[in-house]
Amino acid sequence: MKHSLFSGGKRFRAVLVVESAKVFGGRAEDVLPTACAVEYIHTYSLIHDDLPAIDNDDLRRGVSTCHVAFGEDIAILAGDALYSEAFRLISTLQKANDPQSIIQVIRELATASGVSGMVGGQVVDIQSEGKTVDEETLRFIHEKKTGELIKASVRSGAILACASNRELEVLTDYATNLGLAFQITDDVLDIVGDTAILGKTAGSDARRGKVTYPAVFGLKKSEEMAKIMVDRAKDALKRLNRNTDTLADLADFVYERRF
Amino acid sequence: MKHSLFSGGKRFRAVLVVESAKVFGGRAEDVLPTACAVEYIHTYSLIHDDLPAIDNDDLRRGVSTCHVAFGEDIAILAGDALYSEAFRLISTLQKANDPQSIIQVIRELATASGVSGMVGGQVVDIQSEGKTVDEETLRFIHEKKTGELIKASVRSGAILACASNRELEVLTDYATNLGLAFQITDDVLDIVGDTAILGKTAGSDARRGKVTYPAVFGLKKSEEMAKIMVDRAKDALKRLNRNTDTLADLADFVYERRF
Repeated sequence: MKHSLFSGGKRFRAVLVVESAKVFGGRAEDVLPTACAVEYIHTYSLIHDDLPAIDNDDLRRGVSTCHVAFGEDIAILAGDALYSEAFRLISTLQKANDPQSIIQVIRELATASGVSGMVGGQVVDIQSEGKTVDEETLRFIHEKKTGELIKASVRSGAILACASNRELEVLTDYATNLGLAFQITDDVLDIVGDTAILGKTAGSDARRGKVTYPAVFGLKKSEEMAKIMVDRAKDALKRLNRNTDTLADLADFVYERRF
Repeated sequence: MKHSLFSGGKRFRAVLVVESAKVFGGRAEDVLPTACAVEYIHTYSLIHDDLPAIDNDDLRRGVSTCHVAFGEDIAILAGDALYSEAFRLISTLQKANDPQSIIQVIRELATASGVSGMVGGQVVDIQSEGKTVDEETLRFIHEKKTGELIKASVRSGAILACASNRELEVLTDYATNLGLAFQITDDVLDIVGDTAILGKTAGSDARRGKVTYPAVFGLKKSEEMAKIMVDRAKDALKRLNRNTDTLADLADFVYERRF
């Protein structure tokens, strides 16, 4: 658990929880249990995705994947344990004015990581390997596999900071575009990126016949699509009468990142 | 998910949630989301335990294990998804007079299934295979791997039905003894049981060099120990000024069961 959790990573989803809360007057320290929980869930998903039976990856965040370091049995269980710790953390340490908002955060994260989110996307991704898929399926995989947890991270921070339903809708629009842009950039980086900077083996999508935006639309068109989604994400923020500069910067980061 | 969830099983943990709630005036229909969630968690743990990298079992509840039926990748993800559905179910459908009790139930189940519960026990179990362990380690494995979720099931039903802290303590005493008796009986049934009735392959513990009560104490002593724990569980119930007949019957069932 420690090996995978503390080997680095951008902490992008945790930052989203914190920055989203700040937009509505929340403080970082008030949402840290949920921010950490989101990183636990993300790390658990990476450990399981990297397993020999799934993506069979050796390198992650610049170090050996969990199963290479500790064996497949321990890696499965380390992932399982990180996932349970996420819910333990929120249900034990997360405070809120209204306990219903804690239950709502748990619902957001359980849904985003489950069969109608991350796992669902991963299953369709596996079943699509080596096949030609239409744009709708490709978008489904990316939205579920990556987008839902990014959306839940943004929403959870806002929920804990008592954002209104209308504000949550705007943030959902922001996060949906952000999540899709994030995964398209991931696809692009798998082609143009550097293994040493990425911390994971570049070129592995193509080797496995994964369905990706560059595979369907080409590299240039994919980069343009990511840019359009980043702009849409930033446009959505303008509908909030709040200081959303950092959320806008994070959208730019998604497009400009090299890892 | 459906294959493993609906292939049968005793639904012992779900029954514990319901019957424990009933002791304090709760109705079955009021705690069904949590009762189902506990079965989801139990089934998820069976799917992952049965994986080739862990116990490598082919048969469960009288049908092929999930990975035999659908492949290792889908089995890992089916387990993951059942686990997430458990928390989604509680956070979406479980109602309570006090929302804090829903958060407490999530905390109980996340803790019982995580690194300080089920997963922790499973790791020590794996690391102890083929070794000689002392009674303390054996008890640790059984309490964590099996006992904690049984305890959390009993407690969750009672929490949702607004049991007092003193009543919860008594139930915890009942459930601790019940859980240990349950796992000792499981060890015994692996030796004396019938594969057709068990629904899983008898004799697999010995084949894998698993640490079990019969391996350490012999069959007869193990059965006596299970009986003592069942009696202790029933004795604990007498400290409640409530109708606990069904919980007492469930303790007898644990000792008398043949599957």
